[in-house]
Amino acid sequence: MAEGGGREIDSLNNYYDDLAIGDRITSRGRTITETDLVVFSGLSGDYTQLHTDEEHAKAGPFGGRIAHGCLTLSIATGLEFQLFGTGEVRVLAFYGLDRVRFVKPVFIGDTIHVVVEVIALVDKDETRGVVTFHEEIRNQRDETVAVLDKRTLNKKRAYDA
Amino acid sequence: MAEGGGREIDSLNNYYDDLAIGDRITSRGRTITETDLVVFSGLSGDYTQLHTDEEHAKAGPFGGRIAHGCLTLSIATGLEFQLFGTGEVRVLAFYGLDRVRFVKPVFIGDTIHVVVEVIALVDKDETRGVVTFHEEIRNQRDETVAVLDKRTLNKKRAYDA
Amino acid sequence: MAEGGGREIDSLNNYYDDLAIGDRITSRGRTITETDLVVFSGLSGDYTQLHTDEEHAKAGPFGGRIAHGCLTLSIATGLEFQLFGTGEVRVLAFYGLDRVRFVKPVFIGDTIHVVVEVIALVDKDETRGVVTFHEEIRNQRDETVAVLDKRTLNKKRAYDA
Amino acid sequence: MAEGGGREIDSLNNYYDDLAIGDRITSRGRTITETDLVVFSGLSGDYTQLHTDEEHAKAGPFGGRIAHGCLTLSIATGLEFQLFGTGEVRVLAFYGLDRVRFVKPVFIGDTIHVVVEVIALVDKDETRGVVTFHEEIRNQRDETVAVLDKRTLNKKRAYDA
Amino acid sequence: MAEGGGREIDSLNNYYDDLAIGDRITSRGRTITETDLVVFSGLSGDYTQLHTDEEHAKAGPFGGRIAHGCLTLSIATGLEFQLFGTGEVRVLAFYGLDRVRFVKPVFIGDTIHVVVEVIALVDKDETRGVVTFHEEIRNQRDETVAVLDKRTLNKKRAYDA
Amino acid sequence: MAEGGGREIDSLNNYYDDLAIGDRITSRGRTITETDLVVFSGLSGDYTQLHTDEEHAKAGPFGGRIAHGCLTLSIATGLEFQLFGTGEVRVLAFYGLDRVRFVKPVFIGDTIHVVVEVIALVDKDETRGVVTFHEEIRNQRDETVAVLDKRTLNKKRAYDA
Repeated sequence: MAEGGGREIDSLNNYYDDLAIGDRITSRGRTITETDLVVFSGLSGDYTQLHTDEEHAKAGPFGGRIAHGCLTLSIATGLEFQLFGTGEVRVLAFYGLDRVRFVKPVFIGDTIHVVVEVIALVDKDETRGVVTFHEEIRNQRDETVAVLDKRTLNKKRAYDA
Repeated sequence: MAEGGGREIDSLNNYYDDLAIGDRITSRGRTITETDLVVFSGLSGDYTQLHTDEEHAKAGPFGGRIAHGCLTLSIATGLEFQLFGTGEVRVLAFYGLDRVRFVKPVFIGDTIHVVVEVIALVDKDETRGVVTFHEEIRNQRDETVAVLDKRTLNKKRAYDA
Repeated sequence: MAEGGGREIDSLNNYYDDLAIGDRITSRGRTITETDLVVFSGLSGDYTQLHTDEEHAKAGPFGGRIAHGCLTLSIATGLEFQLFGTGEVRVLAFYGLDRVRFVKPVFIGDTIHVVVEVIALVDKDETRGVVTFHEEIRNQRDETVAVLDKRTLNKKRAYDA
Repeated sequence: MAEGGGREIDSLNNYYDDLAIGDRITSRGRTITETDLVVFSGLSGDYTQLHTDEEHAKAGPFGGRIAHGCLTLSIATGLEFQLFGTGEVRVLAFYGLDRVRFVKPVFIGDTIHVVVEVIALVDKDETRGVVTFHEEIRNQRDETVAVLDKRTLNKKRAYDA
Repeated sequence: MAEGGGREIDSLNNYYDDLAIGDRITSRGRTITETDLVVFSGLSGDYTQLHTDEEHAKAGPFGGRIAHGCLTLSIATGLEFQLFGTGEVRVLAFYGLDRVRFVKPVFIGDTIHVVVEVIALVDKDETRGVVTFHEEIRNQRDETVAVLDKRTLNKKRAYDA
Repeated sequence: MAEGGGREIDSLNNYYDDLAIGDRITSRGRTITETDLVVFSGLSGDYTQLHTDEEHAKAGPFGGRIAHGCLTLSIATGLEFQLFGTGEVRVLAFYGLDRVRFVKPVFIGDTIHVVVEVIALVDKDETRGVVTFHEEIRNQRDETVAVLDKRTLNKKRAYDA
């Protein structure tokens, strides 16, 4: 993702018509705690030892427990939700994810934030369009820990007119 | 995913060498409860009204609150974890997800299970190989609610020999 | 709180200088679930039967379990947090609450939202001022269930200049 | 457990010297919610379908999901904790449980309470004694759902003198 | 609140007739954990960085994450609940809170307790009276972290006669 | 429990006919976290200071907070659940527990696992039999922290034939 060129936007709650390729927004941060790992293990039912057994994890390649991939993805959705501010949400549907890659481990105590950039805009009909966002989830050292592309169906201004 | 042809395997905790394209396994089921939506909203921080505001959701396209996409994915990881049974896990790394699609809403009270099929096997080196699984998350009427491809790095038997 | 007269603002993340008495904002809604009561009982340790024992509560004045007062207050803080959108928060301190009154019970299944109005603005120094908000927590029938006044210390524009 | 004969005591926070065989106390009630089952499944990691899969459970002998045995035991400990009131706890150690039996299923929506009776008192030394309690966990129809004997080490008055 | 003069009572579950101005009771303590902050953020939906982002908080005025004001209030209600011991609760209604002030931050690892004092008694009718309690929430160094006044409607003995 | 002699089995999901006295299986491990203590206190309602008040606990016999006995038992049930792998569960009923003893404290940060051994097999009828398991819950130093006997009703092969 090119660092330059894009316009900094101040909300993710946009009409399709108001977005341009290269638009970018950065979320606030959130610290990943041991509690998040424990609650996520319970909610998901995924008790893999890499996430739940410190003795086992400390003998493994990362030297300690790391966050589940889906926990990192889930917390990123919450950080993005904060960017929706007030008012009726202009996203009509969440189609899916592509090219989700976990590129570095997230440890207990890391603080992650999300950088979101518009990479594609495809007209659907008179009132709606499909937006593709590229997202980078980064830690407190600004290292990318995960990337993904997300496609949503957004209202055009005509939808609410 | 073709229903026929594949071999039914009885565990997801496999060496790379023991898997063949078309191998399939089906998880047990789990009911998605209102609690799951509430806890996931809190854990992720995603309070989108479609998941948290019954009045709003009942006036929307689905007629009620539905599960967050990432909640469905997360619970699927737990259902798969049950298929790992006993012993040291033979998966060394979780690379990522591709073509994740949310094809039907998951409502409070729906019961989901996962059907996993091996769709690609790529040698990495003498002790490891990359497995691609196609997964279908289905509800109690056996309707597919989400699909995805997942790639993991698995041990070969030589790894532990 | 007079319904007319005030300016509708679109964020709670304001500099002191940008606020005027009568400014108002309305949050999104959130449904109070049985899960919220159970999790709050556990988190607070307040297991009063009115909130935890359906048999006891159904024989009482409300005919069923109702939300703890502090649960309603707590969820209101989260609904307000959504109104802070993006960027560095301009509130420096949360001083306290006055005249908190629980005027109607909140039942499982009720959906609450918050109406916030600026009722006092007091200069503190060159970079900060004290804002008093009157808040009404309302249910899905727009009945007020709780009211309170909240005082915060907000930055002036000079603070960040 | 004989219904008659015993003295009704008003606290479980007793010195060994102040207890007599036959002393009894009854806890307040608490409704077992779906949330309790979901949170307990996550905390324990026990996702047995009888507790988590409504479709599966409704085809089984109980016609629906039931509480995990250890969830019922755990909630009973909290109901007993309420009986400790104020002040320093006079129980020094929790030795164990005997003859724990689950005699009837606990369904979502059932409201349980605990009836505790002193059945044995054994001197340990000058400052401590061992108390055995027989406990019956009962539902809203006063049917016993579980029974157990619990042994604790309690202070004598001399301990704090 | 004067330290001397008041009568030490041993329960908060009192008839109006049995209370006198100056009556005091002190709760047990409870340690505020990172888990409490994380679970409260999720339950309330208040993800303000001061409570959830260690990197951000450590650069701020407190040098680290602190408990949400409403979390401290909520945990205080649970500590008071422990003081209700056994038997039917003699509080009929919780009217509200006045002069709630957060006077010192509560950090992860602090242990808080509550000192409650009766400061006003107002007759309502033949069977009920209004009690005002002044509460101080204190940490392990006996420093007051928050204060508030709480008004409840209590039964008189005549109510249950 | 004799360390030698028994057959190592690879699943707890057995028909009665397939078990022999002395059969043994060892679970994976799980680290007991502060989160587990906090969530269990909330779920059970047992806020005994030994589990929730670090200041109090550090002045006591163990020098710090320890896990509730029922938390240890509950987590053991989840570790055993992992040993059930795939397929329909062959346990028809959980009768109860005997001789449950808490022999060493479990501290925050300890990692426990369970060793399960078949100690009795009693025929019930043509399709079912009663199995008694002796269980040792051990920490990361392989010290036994709790023991118990558990009786379940298992299917015979004839049940599913």
